[in-house]
Amino acid sequence: MNAATPLQIEQPYLLYLGDVAQDLYAKTAFGLRDWLPGACVGQFRRPGCGVDALLPDMTPAEAVRAGAKTLVIGVASVGGSLPAAWIDDLAAAMRAGLHVASGMHQRLVDVPVLLELARAHALHLHDVRHNGRTYPVATGQKRTGRRLLTVGTDCALGKKYTALALAREMQAQGLSAHFRATGQTGILISGSGIPLDAVVVDFAAGAAEALSPVNTPNHWDVIEGQGSLFHPGYAGVTLALVHGSQPDALVLCHDPTRHEIAGYPGFPIPSLEAALASYLGAARLTNPQADFLGVALNTATLSATDSLNALEQTERQLGLPCVDPIRTGVARLVTALKLAYGP
Amino acid sequence: MNAATPLQIEQPYLLYLGDVAQDLYAKTAFGLRDWLPGACVGQFRRPGCGVDALLPDMTPAEAVRAGAKTLVIGVASVGGSLPAAWIDDLAAAMRAGLHVASGMHQRLVDVPVLLELARAHALHLHDVRHNGRTYPVATGQKRTGRRLLTVGTDCALGKKYTALALAREMQAQGLSAHFRATGQTGILISGSGIPLDAVVVDFAAGAAEALSPVNTPNHWDVIEGQGSLFHPGYAGVTLALVHGSQPDALVLCHDPTRHEIAGYPGFPIPSLEAALASYLGAARLTNPQADFLGVALNTATLSATDSLNALEQTERQLGLPCVDPIRTGVARLVTALKLAYGP
Repeated sequence: MNAATPLQIEQPYLLYLGDVAQDLYAKTAFGLRDWLPGACVGQFRRPGCGVDALLPDMTPAEAVRAGAKTLVIGVASVGGSLPAAWIDDLAAAMRAGLHVASGMHQRLVDVPVLLELARAHALHLHDVRHNGRTYPVATGQKRTGRRLLTVGTDCALGKKYTALALAREMQAQGLSAHFRATGQTGILISGSGIPLDAVVVDFAAGAAEALSPVNTPNHWDVIEGQGSLFHPGYAGVTLALVHGSQPDALVLCHDPTRHEIAGYPGFPIPSLEAALASYLGAARLTNPQADFLGVALNTATLSATDSLNALEQTERQLGLPCVDPIRTGVARLVTALKLAYGP
Repeated sequence: MNAATPLQIEQPYLLYLGDVAQDLYAKTAFGLRDWLPGACVGQFRRPGCGVDALLPDMTPAEAVRAGAKTLVIGVASVGGSLPAAWIDDLAAAMRAGLHVASGMHQRLVDVPVLLELARAHALHLHDVRHNGRTYPVATGQKRTGRRLLTVGTDCALGKKYTALALAREMQAQGLSAHFRATGQTGILISGSGIPLDAVVVDFAAGAAEALSPVNTPNHWDVIEGQGSLFHPGYAGVTLALVHGSQPDALVLCHDPTRHEIAGYPGFPIPSLEAALASYLGAARLTNPQADFLGVALNTATLSATDSLNALEQTERQLGLPCVDPIRTGVARLVTALKLAYGP
């Protein structure tokens, strides 16, 4: 099995929203809808569901008639395990002929009724957080091909979105580029990747090496960042990903309204200068040519004027191109990339 | 089960050396013999074994009569799996009444004949690399009690030995101190600990927090370091351990004759000043009071004169007490610790 394609999930998707009450628990569904609009035929909701992905509501049978191949669980449950009612819905979807894909901690294959249905109907159960693969210890050896990694001052501020936007813009501008997913939503969007957060720590940098294998010299792997070097829980994940990715170009993702690590009161967000220095110091261990391409600010909570001011001020402060991927797009970063590395 | 005592292995031990040819593959046996001389009643070798732990050769039956409770695999096999001949020997030991402990990648419990014997004779199979426990994401919350962590410029240059020597010396000088193991040999020596290299990366810092839980204010956990921040394969492990351990005191372990990361040509050993700065920067994320206590040089390959010169020169260069745990002992570091933190 190719390292870069550890799984292939058949599209199009029916997005399962269950009975979750809040958008907060539906990040995967929104990510899929935003990045694969043509591949999401509908949503399947239980009574009481408080989330709307703005897709047609469908039963599994209706979705199959609309062409759906796979039901994707687009929501998270509290605690990461599958409620009994959800299992009933998944079973119904399988009886209608759909494969099932999940990024949850609890495995679909550990649910006997789903495993039986998969065998009886020759359907796949995709547990994207548990790909069953093992990885070697990282070698540190340089690989041909180019790599861009998004890194952050904290978790959950746009590293995946920025990488997806960059890969799409690079392709639109004629560059050879692929998005490389490191988390379950990114894997469900791109159909392949490595769930880095489920890898044993000794092999995390090795998994990052496997994620972006040797490629043609001008090919760009655009790698989804994870965690933050400044996060007391996840910095080890981040450092392993930085070392194994051997990025040529880094993009710093930052939310200018956040002053502490989310959920970790007392742990400050570093200055942008300190963040750039820390990431460069880490990245240059395995790629002495590593450098920052620019900054992606998440200004979602700012007014248009404040957003523009934040972008301009950050750009002046750091001397690097600064975008908000949602408000401004990332074209300026790709222009800078072509100037620095060639078309 | 208490977080600090995830397993208890009954002593004394019979050390199994199998048929390995070289001392290089017997690090666990030598570590056990050096640190638990009273708990190792003998060694069990196959014909052709080229290693001698300088213990009486015994059959399992003889070892049982000498009081042994557990056969410990003291050697590593190429590839980390159990040769068939070793399995025969382990089965024979179990029939004689011994529990079995292993730090290998392949699990004892995955070998059907051993699992059957364990059930039939009510014996334990200790797979210390696979303790089956899960850990939460690190909280970053400060815990009472004091912590010392050994860190290194590379792997395999004395972090475990230094931590064991420090814990013993601290106890001898009347301090309340415990060694906390993070690798299989340390776990087999101390009878408890967490095999950090087998933890899923998202929870590695959380495992390090669990390893040294809340304690009395003057108690010292002396934590066995792993990897190196300068190692392209293992730096993520090291950073997670530094963050989760929240060390008050750090001791830098270094081999002055090593100029590249072992097995990674082209990856230089950093200057000692750069190493101190990198580790302090990392440690102060979760403990702003973190500071270096001193340096432990591994001068095993130097002459007595050259060793003394290296110790004196390093001490002048860094302004920190500098010892070789094997040649000089670690008393000076403990004296410095009592001066800095009180008795």
